[in-house]
Amino acid sequence: MALFEEEMDTSPMVSSLLSSLANYSNLTQGSKEHEEAENNEEARKKTVQAPRMGTIMGVYLPCLQNILGVILFLRMTWLVGAGGVLGTFTIVFMCCSTTMLTAISMSAIATNGVVPAGGSYYMISRSLGPEFGGAVGICFYLGTTFAGAMYILGSAAIFKMEGLEGAEAEAALLNNMRVFGTIVLSFMALVVFVGVKYVNKLALVFLACVILSILAVYAGVIKTSFDPPDFPVCVLGNRTLVSKGFDICAKTIERGNATVTTKLWRAFCDSEFLNATCDEYFTNNNISQIQGIPGITSGILAENLFSTFMEKNSMLEKRGIPAVLDPEAPETNTNRYVLADITSFFTLLVGIYFPSVTGIMAGSNRSGDLQDAQKSIPIGTIMAITTTSIIYMSSVILFGACVDGVVLRDKFGEGVNGNLVIGTLAWPSPWVIVFGSFFSTCGAGLQSLTGAPRLLQAIARDGIIPFLRAFGHGKANGEPTWALLLTACICEIGILIASLDAVAPILSMFFLMCYMFVNLACALQTLLRTPNWRPRFKFYHWALSLLGMSLCLTLMFLCSWYYAIVAMVIASCIYKYIEFCGAEKEWGDGIRGISLSAARYALMRLEEGPPHTKNWRPQILVLMSLDVEQNVEQPRLLSLTSQLKAGKGLTIVGACVEGTYLNNQPQAQKGDQSLRKLMEVEKVKGFSQVVISSNLRDATSHLIQAGGLGGLHHNTVLVSFPRNWKQAEEHHRCRNFIEVVRETTASHLALLVPKNISAYPSNGERFTEGHIDVWWIVHDGGMLMLLPFLLRHHKVWRKCKMRIFTVAQMDDNSIQMKKDLMTFLYHLRFDAEVEVVEMHESDISAYTYEKTLVMEQRSQILKEMHLTKNEREREIQSITDVSRGSIRRKNPSNLHPQRSIAEESVGGSGEEKSEEEVAAVSHFVLCAIIHQKPSHSQKKSLQCGVSYRNHSNVRRMHHAQKLNEVIVKKSQEAKLVLLNMPGPPKNRTGEENYMEFLEVLTEGLNRVLLVRGGGREVITIYS
Amino acid sequence: MALFEEEMDTSPMVSSLLSSLANYSNLTQGSKEHEEAENNEEARKKTVQAPRMGTIMGVYLPCLQNILGVILFLRMTWLVGAGGVLGTFTIVFMCCSTTMLTAISMSAIATNGVVPAGGSYYMISRSLGPEFGGAVGICFYLGTTFAGAMYILGSAAIFKMEGLEGAEAEAALLNNMRVFGTIVLSFMALVVFVGVKYVNKLALVFLACVILSILAVYAGVIKTSFDPPDFPVCVLGNRTLVSKGFDICAKTIERGNATVTTKLWRAFCDSEFLNATCDEYFTNNNISQIQGIPGITSGILAENLFSTFMEKNSMLEKRGIPAVLDPEAPETNTNRYVLADITSFFTLLVGIYFPSVTGIMAGSNRSGDLQDAQKSIPIGTIMAITTTSIIYMSSVILFGACVDGVVLRDKFGEGVNGNLVIGTLAWPSPWVIVFGSFFSTCGAGLQSLTGAPRLLQAIARDGIIPFLRAFGHGKANGEPTWALLLTACICEIGILIASLDAVAPILSMFFLMCYMFVNLACALQTLLRTPNWRPRFKFYHWALSLLGMSLCLTLMFLCSWYYAIVAMVIASCIYKYIEFCGAEKEWGDGIRGISLSAARYALMRLEEGPPHTKNWRPQILVLMSLDVEQNVEQPRLLSLTSQLKAGKGLTIVGACVEGTYLNNQPQAQKGDQSLRKLMEVEKVKGFSQVVISSNLRDATSHLIQAGGLGGLHHNTVLVSFPRNWKQAEEHHRCRNFIEVVRETTASHLALLVPKNISAYPSNGERFTEGHIDVWWIVHDGGMLMLLPFLLRHHKVWRKCKMRIFTVAQMDDNSIQMKKDLMTFLYHLRFDAEVEVVEMHESDISAYTYEKTLVMEQRSQILKEMHLTKNEREREIQSITDVSRGSIRRKNPSNLHPQRSIAEESVGGSGEEKSEEEVAAVSHFVLCAIIHQKPSHSQKKSLQCGVSYRNHSNVRRMHHAQKLNEVIVKKSQEAKLVLLNMPGPPKNRTGEENYMEFLEVLTEGLNRVLLVRGGGREVITIYS
Repeated sequence: MALFEEEMDTSPMVSSLLSSLANYSNLTQGSKEHEEAENNEEARKKTVQAPRMGTIMGVYLPCLQNILGVILFLRMTWLVGAGGVLGTFTIVFMCCSTTMLTAISMSAIATNGVVPAGGSYYMISRSLGPEFGGAVGICFYLGTTFAGAMYILGSAAIFKMEGLEGAEAEAALLNNMRVFGTIVLSFMALVVFVGVKYVNKLALVFLACVILSILAVYAGVIKTSFDPPDFPVCVLGNRTLVSKGFDICAKTIERGNATVTTKLWRAFCDSEFLNATCDEYFTNNNISQIQGIPGITSGILAENLFSTFMEKNSMLEKRGIPAVLDPEAPETNTNRYVLADITSFFTLLVGIYFPSVTGIMAGSNRSGDLQDAQKSIPIGTIMAITTTSIIYMSSVILFGACVDGVVLRDKFGEGVNGNLVIGTLAWPSPWVIVFGSFFSTCGAGLQSLTGAPRLLQAIARDGIIPFLRAFGHGKANGEPTWALLLTACICEIGILIASLDAVAPILSMFFLMCYMFVNLACALQTLLRTPNWRPRFKFYHWALSLLGMSLCLTLMFLCSWYYAIVAMVIASCIYKYIEFCGAEKEWGDGIRGISLSAARYALMRLEEGPPHTKNWRPQILVLMSLDVEQNVEQPRLLSLTSQLKAGKGLTIVGACVEGTYLNNQPQAQKGDQSLRKLMEVEKVKGFSQVVISSNLRDATSHLIQAGGLGGLHHNTVLVSFPRNWKQAEEHHRCRNFIEVVRETTASHLALLVPKNISAYPSNGERFTEGHIDVWWIVHDGGMLMLLPFLLRHHKVWRKCKMRIFTVAQMDDNSIQMKKDLMTFLYHLRFDAEVEVVEMHESDISAYTYEKTLVMEQRSQILKEMHLTKNEREREIQSITDVSRGSIRRKNPSNLHPQRSIAEESVGGSGEEKSEEEVAAVSHFVLCAIIHQKPSHSQKKSLQCGVSYRNHSNVRRMHHAQKLNEVIVKKSQEAKLVLLNMPGPPKNRTGEENYMEFLEVLTEGLNRVLLVRGGGREVITIYS
Repeated sequence: MALFEEEMDTSPMVSSLLSSLANYSNLTQGSKEHEEAENNEEARKKTVQAPRMGTIMGVYLPCLQNILGVILFLRMTWLVGAGGVLGTFTIVFMCCSTTMLTAISMSAIATNGVVPAGGSYYMISRSLGPEFGGAVGICFYLGTTFAGAMYILGSAAIFKMEGLEGAEAEAALLNNMRVFGTIVLSFMALVVFVGVKYVNKLALVFLACVILSILAVYAGVIKTSFDPPDFPVCVLGNRTLVSKGFDICAKTIERGNATVTTKLWRAFCDSEFLNATCDEYFTNNNISQIQGIPGITSGILAENLFSTFMEKNSMLEKRGIPAVLDPEAPETNTNRYVLADITSFFTLLVGIYFPSVTGIMAGSNRSGDLQDAQKSIPIGTIMAITTTSIIYMSSVILFGACVDGVVLRDKFGEGVNGNLVIGTLAWPSPWVIVFGSFFSTCGAGLQSLTGAPRLLQAIARDGIIPFLRAFGHGKANGEPTWALLLTACICEIGILIASLDAVAPILSMFFLMCYMFVNLACALQTLLRTPNWRPRFKFYHWALSLLGMSLCLTLMFLCSWYYAIVAMVIASCIYKYIEFCGAEKEWGDGIRGISLSAARYALMRLEEGPPHTKNWRPQILVLMSLDVEQNVEQPRLLSLTSQLKAGKGLTIVGACVEGTYLNNQPQAQKGDQSLRKLMEVEKVKGFSQVVISSNLRDATSHLIQAGGLGGLHHNTVLVSFPRNWKQAEEHHRCRNFIEVVRETTASHLALLVPKNISAYPSNGERFTEGHIDVWWIVHDGGMLMLLPFLLRHHKVWRKCKMRIFTVAQMDDNSIQMKKDLMTFLYHLRFDAEVEVVEMHESDISAYTYEKTLVMEQRSQILKEMHLTKNEREREIQSITDVSRGSIRRKNPSNLHPQRSIAEESVGGSGEEKSEEEVAAVSHFVLCAIIHQKPSHSQKKSLQCGVSYRNHSNVRRMHHAQKLNEVIVKKSQEAKLVLLNMPGPPKNRTGEENYMEFLEVLTEGLNRVLLVRGGGREVITIYS
């Protein structure tokens, strides 16, 4: 592969890459994490060498085992009783839809690449990023932990069912639950600590118990259709009686011929005799026995169709039985009736039911052990959800169709001898259910206690939440001891609550949060269309994910809006904490692309045209110069930028490096770094850009042309006044400066030129008094007025007062001008003192003439040097061939003749043609030669000057001097003087003079900021 | 001012600017609208010449008149009765706070510059933009119109009060209201149509009426403290009786000695005799008379402190009087009692009360007529709000302290002879109130009917809502006839509702919407910190505005959440409609800067570093070339860009123009335009950038270096393969191309080089079958695999299948390779056919040797030409001085020797030094000269080649040819062939050969896309 041999060191041949991939080691680039994960996994594989599992064993059955659980056995009948078949079906359908949609989103995420270390936490955190990942992980952890508590409470409930003594012992019961639960928890924690592998092995046994129980229930249902069990419930009037405390369901029985009172009689009356004083309700109503399980053919379904919500401590009443009731009479003997233990309402049922559908992540948690995770996870999970949904929905209907509402609503089976209500339905024996559900519940509890610490360990090991770091450690064999301890503690909180119905909504919240984020992750990644989002599972859609997400949110708020808010607050605290800790993770996340998309979108939306005057704000391009070491030459330029509060607008700090990109890249990078460092020091928020070009001129021009992107473009250029411009070696910088002035004018950018920039204040200084003086000579958009306003927002200049000076000429009414100016400033809402300086035309002084002459001589000598050099070159060129000569013409240093012609044809200014110019120059040189010492013979040299320059230079010099005099007089003490910058000369002959004029204009002032507007208004008096 | 004279045409002297500003004409730039507005205003001023008004007359009194209104007279007592003093005080306080905060925001907006045409609509629309402005304007209009309806209903209510017949006549009453209201509306509309100027003149008279009424109430309150009026209310049991239908408040009276029944008796009994059968309640309870207005000293305040909300048709019951009531007995004779006409609850009261505090914009509406709007508006408005707030709050307390709750809750005064309840309190006469309130209400109605059409006309004239355009026209004198008609129609809708209590919440909504947006505008502008946001009114704060905004929102949803939603839907429909119509207004708005801030913020947030592999997406810099006419040369490059769906990433389309910015700006602009046009045609969303530089190389390099901004940087360069690179005149393009390859490699950018770009499909084509073939020779990041995936998202390529070919060499196990590759692709989630092509080392064919030789000869001859030229130049240089020579070394076309040394010192590749190279070249030239016809004497020329090139070129050529053979064999029919691009030669000698290799490699293929990775992974198998 000779063609590619030079790159073999960086880019591997495909064949070698593939062979390295064969054992999934990693890609060339491969982040550290992946490598480690791989190593771990491989290490694990070597020790275990477990056969990789398929869809059924690896995903379907674990999911099934995790989803089916305690709620089905302990609460489903009650849910149907309270919510009615329709209501409960709605709840079940909603919850199952939520998990189904979540499973779809999860499948898409799970099949979007190999999850190295396995587990749904990794999956979520790797696609949502550390912040969301951590928040969701903690939610998932808390959910799993509380699920453990729920399972333990459930198993306690199954056992304690027998010893139940009615509502009077409620407090004792709760304490019993607490004690029993704590014991079970300790035992389970011990089991997990000692032998975690047995837990996993027993999972299938537990699953078998559950399936057996469910089958028993179905068998029971079928049996009711032809042989309904005899399952009497004793009812007084229409009130269900607690079955404990009596044996015969009658007031009296005929024993022999005598009528003997029953135990029931004694419970309601003050003696066992027939003439005893009895409870009024007892006297007025008959005792009857109704069939608790009339069977599927009895049509009881119609009666159970609608909801029957109960107040706490209200009595279970059988519908359709008349009862005599005196509303005035106080309720007595309430402990004899079956009472509702909590107030039930629709949304409560949602919270209690939801834990039945959690556990859908069990499959994806095992991704590491699967033969083909990308195929098994979606199929297995969705199959499991479908199966469980069918089981739940059918149970709702079958329970409603078989069992009487009174029995259904009897949560603790008080009316049916403390049996599990679902057990009464089972065939062949209720004990199948009792033991089945007990074992499955215990198993589920063990699994929660196994899974949760591992999850916590995984989060802790990721290191995104510093204070959890301790929980990342484990025993020698990697078992997370500390995490197990924490989990057990949190679990104990749940057990101390001691009520299944109170714990269920809590874990619902956490699971719902988690599911919501899974859906969010899928929707976002789909909408962002990152090329890396290519899930193998194709049947996802962002709309489904969004639907799932909103269902999760709805369910959260349905369950309990305050729990929802608490869960969200917890999640967002974790999010902010992780963000605050500044997690910088090697694992990229799919949604971080959102900021890129946002930036792109925002830029796209931006209109290209210049904003309206009202929205104008300085967007500054700062042209910095770098020294040979690539250090910034004039750092105070950035201080000034920062003081201009341009941080609110765009700031681009640009610098140039001469050379080519291939050779000078290191210099450019070094320059960029020093720019950035300085920007940080000076608190300038913006972008830096270092451009390498073969010459300074092109590089500067590039920055001015193409800084910014789209509508985010600079509108102001800040460049320092060239120091030592009179020195020959700085000549090209001076030229570049003048070209910058020209280019900014041409491209309608404003220009700020601070002179003596090193004297400008640093950001730390504070002026406690003084003035910012604006010398407003011509109006070119109002930059002059706006700048002091902006500066005064910064601490450095806050105490400075703004003064505006303007110059009145001969024919101006300076009093009226001052009045007008004040009104104008009032409407502009600037606070400034106003002064109109009268500057009458005066004679041009001898000094001016002299100064002009010196200047002109200087520039002439420079030009002459240039000219002779050019001429010499021209001679050389005539030697070389014509084609070469034409190429050289394009050389930028030689462009002048072309340009000046072009300019004149465009601008049409009455300047001389370049040929004439040359003639004039020769004339002047002649003059200069004649008057060897110009200072001693002003008049004649003046005439020489006049003869070719038409007084222009002298007049300019005169004006500059006069203006400078006035400014120095008025603003000598000012902290800063802002001044209109005169326009650049139209042709090259004036360049040297231009610099001289600027120099004269600003002489004797400490800090001067020369300002040129961008040819448009930047301030307006209009609203 | 000689220094600035050249700019006088564009930038005026300050003195001339000021004199032009003196009469507020406008600034130089001044948008058209302003000018027109000014002209209108001036025209108006000329005709009216009204003396400009001060704060009191111009703002304070108009605001007062607009704020105080019908609700105070008609509903305030009832509000106090129903809501209790505390509740009502809370409502009043909330509403007044809302308007006060809004007034503060409004003051800030109003004092941020001159509002040209006057009016709050202008103010809002100019600071919020056309979309918000229009929506708010319409809300304001609807609010004002419904306010008109409310006033008319109020005036009707004042009059109809007398004819009231109790609840049984409710329907008739409503119809009466409708008829009366319609008549009043027609009359008022006529008045407005005929003589609008009288309306404005009468405003002060109306205000006087209101103030007189209020004073009368206060006087009455004071009078109650020493002389409470005798104001009996007749009560049966604890129920208030309707005062109509009886005269004496007793069951019987002693007339002479006989006990005679009263009218009241007859109303409740079936005969007038004492033994008549009477209403049970009448029989059981006594009739008593209570004092309706016990006076301020009576301590009735304590009784009225808390709320007494009533169900509809419930009876007004006096607290503290015992009454005998049989709950079973049906209610009879309900028409004799005073009944609640609506169900009252707290939030309803808010909606009914809120219209009392609207009207705060009355002052700012008159900005045009004010002497100093910027001072008067804030002071006047805030003063007026303070005054009215005091009036309202004091009334709440005084009403509660003076009047009995039964009377207060008697909305229509049924128990007090149909008097206005507030009238009963007034001193000297209730008629002061009746007439005062009637006139003020009529006046307010007239003003609404005057103001609303003008507002509509203003909105219509702005032209932002096209379908309203008709309402912009008016009568000859400018009166908005059509707008008045529409206003009257909408007003009629309100009148047909016929209930003050139903109309009030509607207008509350619209006003609240409007106020909300005023607050929003102020908050946003403060937070955005546009330099132009400099309100003269200083006492604003964004937090206050946000508080005001949230208060508005809260009140909206408090009043009625469905009305709030409807109002919001209306507003957002208008917003979207205006946005859809694409209002492009000359008036800038303060909040449009938000998109700029958003873009800047998003860019700032973007991390600078390269994104994680997961987030990698192609961000393409397309290097286009322009022809002399500045048209795009290869438009299909953009088609390809568009097909790459890079639209979801960043796309920068760059082009170069040779020259200088000052001279070639028009060309650059033209080029930019043609780029943009083409981008639009090809549906490429992105940014265009045309760079002018003195040479092509620098310009291209600059685009590669500095395209993009901050973190939004390109990572891929798309450049077309140079056409006709063998032609000498294209040589510099070819050189540029190779430098681009080098530069992209150096800057770690990916590179895409389509060859034969004109054969690429346009966006309109559709391939119905075929393959995209990837020839994966070396792995350099996975771009090769990602590109077909991206392309297949586009319609053009959707039906194409992806095939991946890779080359197995001698020692590779190709079967294993294929298997590995398939697994790899599976994990990458790409669907592709895989083929491993075996390519065994074979002898180098004679043809290869020949081809190599031809190539080398060609490049040698070229080089020689170059060399001789260089040598000739060198001679010339030796003539010129040394310094010049050193400058010339920096010339880009001459940089080569420097670079190759630099490269070798960096890369250390075993290539020849340049001197050796030259020697080798001479050797070759010798060879070439010896074997004049190389094709006839291959072997010898080969040896020549071998002797200096160490087989390298031959091997490369051989490989290129072999690879080309295989590719052509397999992919001849493919729609697109993707291929690794070999790396560029390390030194300049190889450049010509490099092009030749590429040419050979891609020979005989229709569409080839050469791909070079950017040195980093862009695909990952990991999640």
